[in-house]
Amino acid sequence: MLFHVRMDVNIPRDLPADEAAEIIAREKAYSQALQASGKWRHIWRIAGEYANFSILDVRDNAELHEILSGLPLFPFMRIEVTPLLRHPSSIREDDR
Amino acid sequence: MLFHVRMDVNIPRDLPADEAAEIIAREKAYSQALQASGKWRHIWRIAGEYANFSILDVRDNAELHEILSGLPLFPFMRIEVTPLLRHPSSIREDDR
Amino acid sequence: MLFHVRMDVNIPRDLPADEAAEIIAREKAYSQALQASGKWRHIWRIAGEYANFSILDVRDNAELHEILSGLPLFPFMRIEVTPLLRHPSSIREDDR
Amino acid sequence: MLFHVRMDVNIPRDLPADEAAEIIAREKAYSQALQASGKWRHIWRIAGEYANFSILDVRDNAELHEILSGLPLFPFMRIEVTPLLRHPSSIREDDR
Amino acid sequence: MLFHVRMDVNIPRDLPADEAAEIIAREKAYSQALQASGKWRHIWRIAGEYANFSILDVRDNAELHEILSGLPLFPFMRIEVTPLLRHPSSIREDDR
Amino acid sequence: MLFHVRMDVNIPRDLPADEAAEIIAREKAYSQALQASGKWRHIWRIAGEYANFSILDVRDNAELHEILSGLPLFPFMRIEVTPLLRHPSSIREDDR
Amino acid sequence: MLFHVRMDVNIPRDLPADEAAEIIAREKAYSQALQASGKWRHIWRIAGEYANFSILDVRDNAELHEILSGLPLFPFMRIEVTPLLRHPSSIREDDR
Amino acid sequence: MLFHVRMDVNIPRDLPADEAAEIIAREKAYSQALQASGKWRHIWRIAGEYANFSILDVRDNAELHEILSGLPLFPFMRIEVTPLLRHPSSIREDDR
Amino acid sequence: MLFHVRMDVNIPRDLPADEAAEIIAREKAYSQALQASGKWRHIWRIAGEYANFSILDVRDNAELHEILSGLPLFPFMRIEVTPLLRHPSSIREDDR
Amino acid sequence: MLFHVRMDVNIPRDLPADEAAEIIAREKAYSQALQASGKWRHIWRIAGEYANFSILDVRDNAELHEILSGLPLFPFMRIEVTPLLRHPSSIREDDR
Repeated sequence: MLFHVRMDVNIPRDLPADEAAEIIAREKAYSQALQASGKWRHIWRIAGEYANFSILDVRDNAELHEILSGLPLFPFMRIEVTPLLRHPSSIREDDR
Repeated sequence: MLFHVRMDVNIPRDLPADEAAEIIAREKAYSQALQASGKWRHIWRIAGEYANFSILDVRDNAELHEILSGLPLFPFMRIEVTPLLRHPSSIREDDR
Repeated sequence: MLFHVRMDVNIPRDLPADEAAEIIAREKAYSQALQASGKWRHIWRIAGEYANFSILDVRDNAELHEILSGLPLFPFMRIEVTPLLRHPSSIREDDR
Repeated sequence: MLFHVRMDVNIPRDLPADEAAEIIAREKAYSQALQASGKWRHIWRIAGEYANFSILDVRDNAELHEILSGLPLFPFMRIEVTPLLRHPSSIREDDR
Repeated sequence: MLFHVRMDVNIPRDLPADEAAEIIAREKAYSQALQASGKWRHIWRIAGEYANFSILDVRDNAELHEILSGLPLFPFMRIEVTPLLRHPSSIREDDR
Repeated sequence: MLFHVRMDVNIPRDLPADEAAEIIAREKAYSQALQASGKWRHIWRIAGEYANFSILDVRDNAELHEILSGLPLFPFMRIEVTPLLRHPSSIREDDR
Repeated sequence: MLFHVRMDVNIPRDLPADEAAEIIAREKAYSQALQASGKWRHIWRIAGEYANFSILDVRDNAELHEILSGLPLFPFMRIEVTPLLRHPSSIREDDR
Repeated sequence: MLFHVRMDVNIPRDLPADEAAEIIAREKAYSQALQASGKWRHIWRIAGEYANFSILDVRDNAELHEILSGLPLFPFMRIEVTPLLRHPSSIREDDR
Repeated sequence: MLFHVRMDVNIPRDLPADEAAEIIAREKAYSQALQASGKWRHIWRIAGEYANFSILDVRDNAELHEILSGLPLFPFMRIEVTPLLRHPSSIREDDR
Repeated sequence: MLFHVRMDVNIPRDLPADEAAEIIAREKAYSQALQASGKWRHIWRIAGEYANFSILDVRDNAELHEILSGLPLFPFMRIEVTPLLRHPSSIREDDR
């Protein structure tokens, strides 16, 4: 089941640089593991912003929340979720 | 080059039913031809709304506008475009 | 899987009264059948508005959209969907 | 008498971790006692956000405010209240 | 129990003048009967707008909705309800 | 001359507790003196929020500003003023 | 007593041209009579918009409303009123 | 050439009181010198807010920006500029 | 003197096609004459929208309004004006 | 390929003055190098605000993001990007 997620990141200026770097490194590993598992289907950077649009493919709302609230950057993010479904005009088998 | 597009459709109630049906059929064919060509990479329905999120892969802004303004439903749509780029954490080769 | 849905109804003034009455009657029957089946868990009127908050319990996003887009009043509604999940503090077994 | 309440929590980063944990534990106990009493009818987590939708069943506006302003997390919440009533299409006896 | 209500009126231009006049006359009578009964405690015009702020004193949310949805101008109004309660600094006995 | 005022209070967390308590006590005394004088006609708490709706009865805009800017909590408030006048449907002598 | 007023005009396209012209002519005469009387202190066009900012000098809120609701274009205007007072830094005698 | 300017002031709480007083005094002198020169035509306080509406009469956009960005309170202001011109209904010679 | 202008066009569906075509042709000629004269410095289409960003170089606010309100499409446009000036970092001689 | 960019700068008050000056100097050099290269086609100050409108001419979205995210002031900016294309009415050869 697919969800569209917009994530806006805002790291506070007083977070020590090494702490921020460590969180960002964990965020990347966390995201890539979920991408490898197929649950995080797409992630794109939004031009000019510290933000992304992502497509997640999860079992249900609970799993979606578990993934999002587990993001290392979660405390510094504004997240907006939109439930998706297959579009009747789609010709891609996997855009279900 | 990828663009994120949100399209909200609002067909006026006084459009004759057969005219609306004909436009919607042309819209579907138009979208599927562009999907087949690889230019319209994804299209998803937004749950509960007559709207979609799409990902287009075009040569430049001009081609993007040519495609969007050529949509048979264009006169009845509100369209919002966001330029995308490859996310540094992405592991998908084609999310460039 | 639970979804929170806000529905705002706006029936155009030029819809003939009997046509409006017939749509509203079908809307009520449609809603009550889904309530009886357990898929439409709650519906509350918002005081002072022609609007409701509802809780739907569906298999997935696709079923949610099928139910909402099938509403007889769908063409006259603005709908806003929010995915829900069990709250860690909840003590109700069925608020999953 | 039912009220729909949206609560958005924003715990400031400089609140000591043990103080935050203690407040959150009190919040949970407070909510569960009110759920057990029947006054806090439903609570659902909103997917991807530190927020909930709740349904409260109270005697009047004053009791509603007493409950909400007594929340241990109240100083860190944005709260939005909407008065509800039984929907004419509802078939649930207790959605009054 | 007190509620704050903002009502914005927008009478469509194509409503025949006598029909509009008749609705407005019924609106006035309806409002004054409720004021006389004590349920509609205050009504003030907002300067420069076809709008009012009102204070209603009702038994519960259901009675509030019954009153508001029964307004002859209801189909031409945007209504916004805010539940009130006695302010701890109030010295007026009847601002409960 | 009547004015509708919405006041939203936001006391910063780093204000020392005794300083806050002292300001709140002065605010209450200030408000009650103005209520006793008849200039602050009504004050109601908004359910679930640290906010109030008030009705002030003043000589002119200058007196309104003098009262509002003199509020002990003024530096911590967002204030929104709306000029009112007697509603043609009002039956209360003093809602002028 | 001074008020700042923003007026946005939106004349419906289906208003007959001569009717529109007649209303606009009456609007101009109405405005100029009030300017001559000193009650309508200033009026400026907003560049690029069918809108104006005006300063009115009236006895009270009731007179303000009487003037604004009497505008021949009132049914086609969105009006926003802001109460003003003398600024402590002003050196103009008549900006009271 | 006239411009309408709204200035909202927000002096941070941690600015030392004497520093704030000194900036406010300079602001007043700066404003009054420009009023005396005729460039700052009007300034009015907005009732209930630490804000003003002003009318500036400047040679061009560059001079407008030079004046506004030179305000001693500029770092603590939100400023919104609207270009004005003579209204065709104006009878005041100097509202050009 | 430079101004940034955003123009959003919304041609009503019931405007006869030949009338619309004639207005659009006049709009193009009008714009190109002003471009040739140097007063309309730039015009760009916004991708996916029936809208443009333009830069106008005019003598003053009055000339700006004269040009904009003279647009054949003016009755069908929403226009937003922002005054510009030379940026201190600019190296282009003519971005004054 | 052209993009319209709005940049709003907000330098935090607790950034040491010499650090701020150094960042601003680097920003200016960075911008001017890109202007000299032809990639940053225009930059204009917005009157009364610490903000600019810019036109960038880049190869693709990725280059746009590389330039914007490399701005020395990027951590203190809110940036909004709009993709542009040649307007059919444009007579300037280089507004492609």
